[in-house]
Amino acid sequence: MADLTAERVVAAFDSLATGDRDRIVEYWAEDLNFTVPGTHAYAGRYESLDGFLGFVGNLVRLSGGSLNATRSAVLLNIEEGLSVDLNHITAKHAGSPADSDSPYDNYDIDALHLLRWENGRVVEGQFVAYGAHTEDVPLFWSPRNPDGSRREVV
Amino acid sequence: MADLTAERVVAAFDSLATGDRDRIVEYWAEDLNFTVPGTHAYAGRYESLDGFLGFVGNLVRLSGGSLNATRSAVLLNIEEGLSVDLNHITAKHAGSPADSDSPYDNYDIDALHLLRWENGRVVEGQFVAYGAHTEDVPLFWSPRNPDGSRREVV
Amino acid sequence: MADLTAERVVAAFDSLATGDRDRIVEYWAEDLNFTVPGTHAYAGRYESLDGFLGFVGNLVRLSGGSLNATRSAVLLNIEEGLSVDLNHITAKHAGSPADSDSPYDNYDIDALHLLRWENGRVVEGQFVAYGAHTEDVPLFWSPRNPDGSRREVV
Amino acid sequence: MADLTAERVVAAFDSLATGDRDRIVEYWAEDLNFTVPGTHAYAGRYESLDGFLGFVGNLVRLSGGSLNATRSAVLLNIEEGLSVDLNHITAKHAGSPADSDSPYDNYDIDALHLLRWENGRVVEGQFVAYGAHTEDVPLFWSPRNPDGSRREVV
Repeated sequence: MADLTAERVVAAFDSLATGDRDRIVEYWAEDLNFTVPGTHAYAGRYESLDGFLGFVGNLVRLSGGSLNATRSAVLLNIEEGLSVDLNHITAKHAGSPADSDSPYDNYDIDALHLLRWENGRVVEGQFVAYGAHTEDVPLFWSPRNPDGSRREVV
Repeated sequence: MADLTAERVVAAFDSLATGDRDRIVEYWAEDLNFTVPGTHAYAGRYESLDGFLGFVGNLVRLSGGSLNATRSAVLLNIEEGLSVDLNHITAKHAGSPADSDSPYDNYDIDALHLLRWENGRVVEGQFVAYGAHTEDVPLFWSPRNPDGSRREVV
Repeated sequence: MADLTAERVVAAFDSLATGDRDRIVEYWAEDLNFTVPGTHAYAGRYESLDGFLGFVGNLVRLSGGSLNATRSAVLLNIEEGLSVDLNHITAKHAGSPADSDSPYDNYDIDALHLLRWENGRVVEGQFVAYGAHTEDVPLFWSPRNPDGSRREVV
Repeated sequence: MADLTAERVVAAFDSLATGDRDRIVEYWAEDLNFTVPGTHAYAGRYESLDGFLGFVGNLVRLSGGSLNATRSAVLLNIEEGLSVDLNHITAKHAGSPADSDSPYDNYDIDALHLLRWENGRVVEGQFVAYGAHTEDVPLFWSPRNPDGSRREVV
């Protein structure tokens, strides 16, 4: 069984980007529970790997492929099978003007994933925004343009 | 041209309940703008009658038909073509336990509609929750059960 | 007893600006209930005229005197003793940079007051923000600068 | 210089409970930055140890001493000087009825602290709620009772 290491945490997220399900299931359990906080359309606890991958797909779609995450560190508690990875994440909402600096159009936050591993795979995950712009997160996820009209991409 | 009266405001909302589009367009303009506040999935400014009717349909669907509004008063400014109707609205989220008193499952708020009329029809509307439970509104609209899992009906 | 008219609604708000308590109590009842929505420090239902005047004072203080309200219309239901006045309100948070356009620093919303009158005085009031920037209101009221640091004026 | 260990993370929080400033400064730097998310009255980035201790004091005061945190695990990245401790935190708002289960009265959340250490002391911290009840946090922190009236203890 693969040991829990910082490299394995990184590889788990790299597998998501490949879209290769055979590779993804080396790191993420089929009965994964993954919680996204908030009251927006994509919030809540997904209770399967497919549910979680649907969420990831929506995030890519809403950001028009502009999503960028820079990982700064990984923390571990190996005995308990826990990892935390710290990231700075930026994205621009699909269809928003390139020069907009509105929090409705821009995602620019610190966020961490808290993962619990069993038998070498993630069985439980939390997405957690933190820091200065946490309060702006619902604005980006909302179906509104800065002027209040409904977005085209929701 | 029909005058703006409290009776006409009541009739406008009654027409929505009939689902009869010919009757609805006697009161609501085709190019109606209607704003729903918040950052939930159904928030934003709808910019056509069809968009607005889609919102109304979602509200009925999410509440499993349990939506109940009791109108207490209508205020008017006839020269400016403005009406406000005050309501107490209750609903139980589709699929939620009958005995739940969680704000995730129950909608129990005071709400008003602010409408602007031109040539006898509503051209602009605002849905506005107010009073003690305004803060709970995003919980009801969210895709979460009280325990954090994703709802079946979203 | 003074009748409920649009002029009387305007006069009630004008009295607040004078700070003259003798004049204020001509329009606002001593046992006034006044509700401010939200979860910020100044939210909740104030249950006396003094509580309400304390809220108004905090609003002036937080905005460094920059608060500006432009009334566009008054709606009435005279039999029920109800008034609604519509306003566009702007303010800049005390201590914020003059050129900031952050919603943490700027208040730029449509808001209405729903008032219930008895014996010529307001006995119950609701402050209600509506429209495109409703979601930004908690940011202005929060004790945070746009960079996340605590404000000097809170 | 003391090494970063799980024991040292635990001791840092234990020192806060003693109220002994000499002991506290063994773990927490005088120029500590500590961020509390949200738009409530106590949110924002505190930029000194005294500011942070004031926040902790408010938390104890608002919960009428009922605050209880159960730590489940500590994660580390020793090279980067980072720790995360996971907790379940419960509290009942001071003055609230003993049998209330309203989220306005009860704090019942998972929360973590993300700490950055330099020279054996915490120089930067984040309080981060996560999981199913994250959305309820602003209700507890608000100055409102469940019925919307202002709280006595705010």
